Amino acid sequence: MKLNSTRVLALVIILTLMTITSNVLAKDGAWTIGPRMLPPSVDVSDEFREILLNTPTPNTEAAKSNIPETTEQWEAMISAADEQTAAAARKMAKALSVKVKHDTISGVNIYRVTPPKIAPEHKNHLFFHVHGGAYILNGGEAGTFEAVLIASHLKIPVISIDYRMPPKHPAPAAMEDVLAVWKVLLNERSAALIAMGGTSGGAGLTMSSVQRFQELGLALPQALLLGTPGADAAKVGDTRYINEGIDTGLVMWDGVIEEAMKMYATNYDLTDPYVSPVYGNFEGFPPSYLISGTRDLMLSDTVRVHRKLRRAGVDADLHVYEGQSHADYLKFMNVPESSEHFAELNAFLLKHLSKPLATTSALQNEVLKNIAVPESAAY
Amino acid sequence: MKLNSTRVLALVIILTLMTITSNVLAKDGAWTIGPRMLPPSVDVSDEFREILLNTPTPNTEAAKSNIPETTEQWEAMISAADEQTAAAARKMAKALSVKVKHDTISGVNIYRVTPPKIAPEHKNHLFFHVHGGAYILNGGEAGTFEAVLIASHLKIPVISIDYRMPPKHPAPAAMEDVLAVWKVLLNERSAALIAMGGTSGGAGLTMSSVQRFQELGLALPQALLLGTPGADAAKVGDTRYINEGIDTGLVMWDGVIEEAMKMYATNYDLTDPYVSPVYGNFEGFPPSYLISGTRDLMLSDTVRVHRKLRRAGVDADLHVYEGQSHADYLKFMNVPESSEHFAELNAFLLKHLSKPLATTSALQNEVLKNIAVPESAAY
Repeated sequence: MKLNSTRVLALVIILTLMTITSNVLAKDGAWTIGPRMLPPSVDVSDEFREILLNTPTPNTEAAKSNIPETTEQWEAMISAADEQTAAAARKMAKALSVKVKHDTISGVNIYRVTPPKIAPEHKNHLFFHVHGGAYILNGGEAGTFEAVLIASHLKIPVISIDYRMPPKHPAPAAMEDVLAVWKVLLNERSAALIAMGGTSGGAGLTMSSVQRFQELGLALPQALLLGTPGADAAKVGDTRYINEGIDTGLVMWDGVIEEAMKMYATNYDLTDPYVSPVYGNFEGFPPSYLISGTRDLMLSDTVRVHRKLRRAGVDADLHVYEGQSHADYLKFMNVPESSEHFAELNAFLLKHLSKPLATTSALQNEVLKNIAVPESAAY
Repeated sequence: MKLNSTRVLALVIILTLMTITSNVLAKDGAWTIGPRMLPPSVDVSDEFREILLNTPTPNTEAAKSNIPETTEQWEAMISAADEQTAAAARKMAKALSVKVKHDTISGVNIYRVTPPKIAPEHKNHLFFHVHGGAYILNGGEAGTFEAVLIASHLKIPVISIDYRMPPKHPAPAAMEDVLAVWKVLLNERSAALIAMGGTSGGAGLTMSSVQRFQELGLALPQALLLGTPGADAAKVGDTRYINEGIDTGLVMWDGVIEEAMKMYATNYDLTDPYVSPVYGNFEGFPPSYLISGTRDLMLSDTVRVHRKLRRAGVDADLHVYEGQSHADYLKFMNVPESSEHFAELNAFLLKHLSKPLATTSALQNEVLKNIAVPESAAY
């Protein structure tokens, strides 16, 4: 049987490698991990299993060889990717009747993303969304992809920020934009009514921004979404190695992601909390919701942030999904695991966002406004 | 234009690689994952990093070749391991001034594990401990290892059950023992004052037992410790493959663990919830605390159980530690990560275990008993 001979061959390779490396300690303590077979995950939804069954082994060679070299090449790669994502975001918004309207706040581009109906329990709430994309992708309407899903699933109004990015604008441009918008949002409503966050680089930028808000003595958002956060701009973290060639989305750190981080960091050391917020302060952080998967290259980023939060005494909920790669809850947004994520996120936000007395009164007043009250009822 | 030729080149490379490197879908959809280097984890405590720096690559060959064949060989292997663990447990109990006293409940062997001082907030509480060891190891005093740590860190009294195990006693002997003891514990105090659980097989047996308590209409423990639970008796779960040869403790599923599961299951199908509780019912489960690590062979078991609990609406807290293998919080019980685990566990139990009014009154009465109250004070 063909499969068996493949397996026997794999075994022979493993045995040979084991004999050669023979468990001697490498100078830097690094381990040599042999090849292996990874079957499609079993205990997942039928829909997600079907996807895994039809996904070939992630191609590390292609990932490594496809790195732009000049600024023009970067910009071409970025705009090609963003065009596709923007088209998908537009289609999705239309299908879900979510309104996406461009606007500016303090000169920063933003999108107002509004579901067809706001849930009564989210009346007065706002989700301040920070898109991901390794700090280079998802500029313009492409950045609204996750925002549309949040608005639709949670029935909450969203403002999604289109912050400046490399190659033209390395850090701190992105955070300056977030800060400028945040100051205006704080004038419009209580921070206790605002959730903030995003996925990957969006979660990373959220964390460094919140750390900056703290330094400036600004009010903080009431709750955070830290979706498989880009917490470390350097190649640090077990799963950056363990899940190389296993994560179907990112595939591997070396290559485009690594170079994107360097472009973003330009003016900063890779360990500076400004670009690697995992090394920043987490004391007094808002309650945070974290999500990752067993095949996620950034699982270590996620659990490292979770522990930093917990050590600082922050209410932080960690969710790890079997079989999921980096941000699969966005990529495969129509499988049950994705809906489950948004349901969990909503439950978390509803637990932590303030429910101002005004909400109830406003609703009541609406209902009661046409009922005449006889004079005697007030005695 | 240069860019176009770059793109064409990239496309050609991708297509070529897809043709060459078995990115052809295997019949069963399994991926072939290549070898890699795994450096020691970085963002961990200095003490734990030192351990990782001095740990050689886990030896899969040794793990595979060291499998007992006859019942006598199994018993010899088990008793050799248990002697060592029992000696360590005794040393630890002595060093921590924890009392370990053998007793029986309903004819089942148990150990009463008592810290030198019970924390006032745990007055009236009890931790019902179920030891791990792949359902074959840690019989007798060896099973008190984790119980001593729980008693010492949490300052809570512990009863640790020495349930019957294979090769002599496959399932359902272990669960029958747990059930017999649980019924007596329920007569002695309210279930709302009892936490239950353990690590690995101990967490697995805890889950199947709680599922059985439910079937019988018995009161359930108020909170559970599910430490890197053995949730599935078959080789299912991403990290059983991904972390093969990376987990320093278990090393790999194939071999001793696989055979131990088969011995334990003897009378049951491997997917029967009796031996694979992840397939059982989680509705109405007690609040549960789960812990695992990025190098844990059972990380998938842990996150699968976490999701089953969350889907059933159960309050369940997941903790995943960077760099940690299966149950490293027990194996390296003197590094900060281990203390952190026990602090988290204690916070979780204190949040969920009932604090009966009686506790406060009893304390107050003790303090006030010698103060004479003048007649007029009661007017």
